[in-house]
Amino acid sequence: MESDKPLKVAVLGCGSVGSQVVRLLGEQADDLAARIGAPVELVGVAVRRLDAQREVDVPPGLLTTDAVGLVTRPDVDVVVEVVGGIEPARSLILAALENGASVVTANKALLAEDGPTLFEAAAKVGRDLYYEAAVAGAIPILRPLRESLAGDRVTRVLGIVNGTTNFILDRMDSSGAGFAEALEEAQELGYAEADPTADVEGFDAAAKAAILASLAFHSRVTASDVHREGIAEVTAADVESAREMGCVVKLLAICELRETEDGQSAVAVRVHPAMIPRSHPLASVREAFNAVFVESEAAGQLMFYGPGAGGAPTASAVLGDLVTVARNRLAGTRGVGESAYADRAVLPMGETVTRYHVAIDVDDRAGVLASVATAFAENGVSIQTVRQEGRGADAQLVVVSHESTDAALSATVEHLRGMDIVREVTSVMRVEGASE
Amino acid sequence: MESDKPLKVAVLGCGSVGSQVVRLLGEQADDLAARIGAPVELVGVAVRRLDAQREVDVPPGLLTTDAVGLVTRPDVDVVVEVVGGIEPARSLILAALENGASVVTANKALLAEDGPTLFEAAAKVGRDLYYEAAVAGAIPILRPLRESLAGDRVTRVLGIVNGTTNFILDRMDSSGAGFAEALEEAQELGYAEADPTADVEGFDAAAKAAILASLAFHSRVTASDVHREGIAEVTAADVESAREMGCVVKLLAICELRETEDGQSAVAVRVHPAMIPRSHPLASVREAFNAVFVESEAAGQLMFYGPGAGGAPTASAVLGDLVTVARNRLAGTRGVGESAYADRAVLPMGETVTRYHVAIDVDDRAGVLASVATAFAENGVSIQTVRQEGRGADAQLVVVSHESTDAALSATVEHLRGMDIVREVTSVMRVEGASE
Repeated sequence: MESDKPLKVAVLGCGSVGSQVVRLLGEQADDLAARIGAPVELVGVAVRRLDAQREVDVPPGLLTTDAVGLVTRPDVDVVVEVVGGIEPARSLILAALENGASVVTANKALLAEDGPTLFEAAAKVGRDLYYEAAVAGAIPILRPLRESLAGDRVTRVLGIVNGTTNFILDRMDSSGAGFAEALEEAQELGYAEADPTADVEGFDAAAKAAILASLAFHSRVTASDVHREGIAEVTAADVESAREMGCVVKLLAICELRETEDGQSAVAVRVHPAMIPRSHPLASVREAFNAVFVESEAAGQLMFYGPGAGGAPTASAVLGDLVTVARNRLAGTRGVGESAYADRAVLPMGETVTRYHVAIDVDDRAGVLASVATAFAENGVSIQTVRQEGRGADAQLVVVSHESTDAALSATVEHLRGMDIVREVTSVMRVEGASE
Repeated sequence: MESDKPLKVAVLGCGSVGSQVVRLLGEQADDLAARIGAPVELVGVAVRRLDAQREVDVPPGLLTTDAVGLVTRPDVDVVVEVVGGIEPARSLILAALENGASVVTANKALLAEDGPTLFEAAAKVGRDLYYEAAVAGAIPILRPLRESLAGDRVTRVLGIVNGTTNFILDRMDSSGAGFAEALEEAQELGYAEADPTADVEGFDAAAKAAILASLAFHSRVTASDVHREGIAEVTAADVESAREMGCVVKLLAICELRETEDGQSAVAVRVHPAMIPRSHPLASVREAFNAVFVESEAAGQLMFYGPGAGGAPTASAVLGDLVTVARNRLAGTRGVGESAYADRAVLPMGETVTRYHVAIDVDDRAGVLASVATAFAENGVSIQTVRQEGRGADAQLVVVSHESTDAALSATVEHLRGMDIVREVTSVMRVEGASE
């Protein structure tokens, strides 16, 4: 499909991503035109303040504070939304779709909270809503899940999808630093924001987990379905304990297909720090890099690795989507829309199957190990390994369980905490990516 | 787009990949129907012998030895070609396209030798020709290059795209074995064929390099454009020398965008063993796994990792393509076809810029280092590091050059070989993936 008529693009937001989108639209104009089959014309950039400093020179005539006016212009073909947040992004995207524009967005929070509303609006008008940049920045992961693996059955997705927390945990692992110290270093280097809550508490990763689970399992999963634990409680001792087991601590977004008791398949989706073996491909993901590890029935184990954030990498993903939706417009078609036909239920965290690593300070007397083992058994949890470290006042037991429901494991830990011979449960962490 | 009318699929070949395609078409029928929007019906499987043993039960009525009859059936919508080789695969694909079918193939040799003929035939009839399975098995790499990175400028692709040679080199690295011994082990384990030429001499990797370069740089690159060196000459001493440099030896498919003297951009594409730093993401690709490392202007560094061969993984890629081309047929459209608009020239190997690692047995007398350094200088090659090892009869110089043209580096090695003080040039290998 070829056309001389330019394809008109409006960009909402001109921060670190938006300014890179504007830059690349200019610098790559010839390549974009050749790959799309029609030239691309930037017709407007909506910003909050006209006089703000920007990383790119936007022709002043293109800047506007009237985002609603921009997305409802009758001649706009594609709207790129890189403002972020729930509102006004949602209203603007809905207005753009209603106006017949195709939409490309990087807005994970909005998609995880209210994706179905957007997908339905796009389907209703027969337009594309693409969002590769919403998960793992530049790493092509949504398109592979949606298209490359469409003939396969994905069974699990394990993602390191938040660069800030990976940087912090990597520093804790390599330098032995505590959480507070590593966070401070991340802030100094610009990897963490002044208010790091969204990253550190796992909100950002949970939004991405919801998006990944929806695509992988063809079901609707929203952020509120995701069990979420952050990394603020991870201690230097946890990291050291992981090291002794040949593991490393990572904040993982985990999406799994699990069989329920009645033989149906359900989705288990959660974000929490976990120990993974150092031999696992995800273990070598250092600093602020992201990676998504996918297990599927036929393909086996795949991993997608790259920069998970940053203006230019995110803009690369945005522009890849822009080329696709532009080509689809020229061809009078649309790409793969929402696919939620499998309509799987989301398993409550308590019914999710996990493994625990538990370190316990105990009195050093005969029968302690037997008592602890009995506590696991009484809760229906079977033990894989138990290791005794130190003696006397320093005696510690380290137990790694077999797979069990999270509820049973959590009840076991409560049980241990109530036992006389247990001085303290010093570390509780789930174990992922290891063979049982 | 939804339809009750089944989409009719013919499969050519029922070996390790074909039988998995047939199996998955059956087992995943419901999911495929939901993802495509129409049921899929297998209407025939062309085989050489009806009575051969197969990994899957094909209803006998579907088996046929008349491949031409099958692909020219008027009701066939999609032809899956997993026979391999140039003929009759090419004629069958051309006949299928002419008959109006869409085609999915895993045939790297054919695409690398004569892709343009096939692409033109597909374009002429307005049908899809998809081939994700042709490079790196299950790993989604062609779709990301063609679509996800369509808004970016790819500058380099480094791929470990042959599992057999990666297994052999990994064994040489981990056990200190020589090439012959590692090859034998690979053959015993089924990772190498009885006649290992296509893998060991780099023909397989060269075909994949041509396909990757074509997509990454929007130009026509065929197998004959690829400079090719295999791993049969790699010695245990080379591997040990790499280890001492903090490197590992890998057979790499390298596709680069290079500026020519007249300011044009050209494609450099080659397959050869090379030393890469152990810290490089490709260095940790073990055993028979594949990985493709992509550098682009905006996205930065990405890596795609997974199983590069095998029946089920390859079938996963085939079926992903099948879903896409089936959806396109239902929508009356086609996906991204050949993109060769950039029409870049392929740089001769001599003009390609590389770095050499050279180990030289030298006489241990004053001035030897100076003489060797002069030989490099006289050929216009600048030295990054030089290290002297041993003394007396065991004296060895290990030189790593800065980037230079391959012709100058190769001339330097010839020069060294002719020098009196040089007893032997014991190892010559290119260095990739390291900062200068």
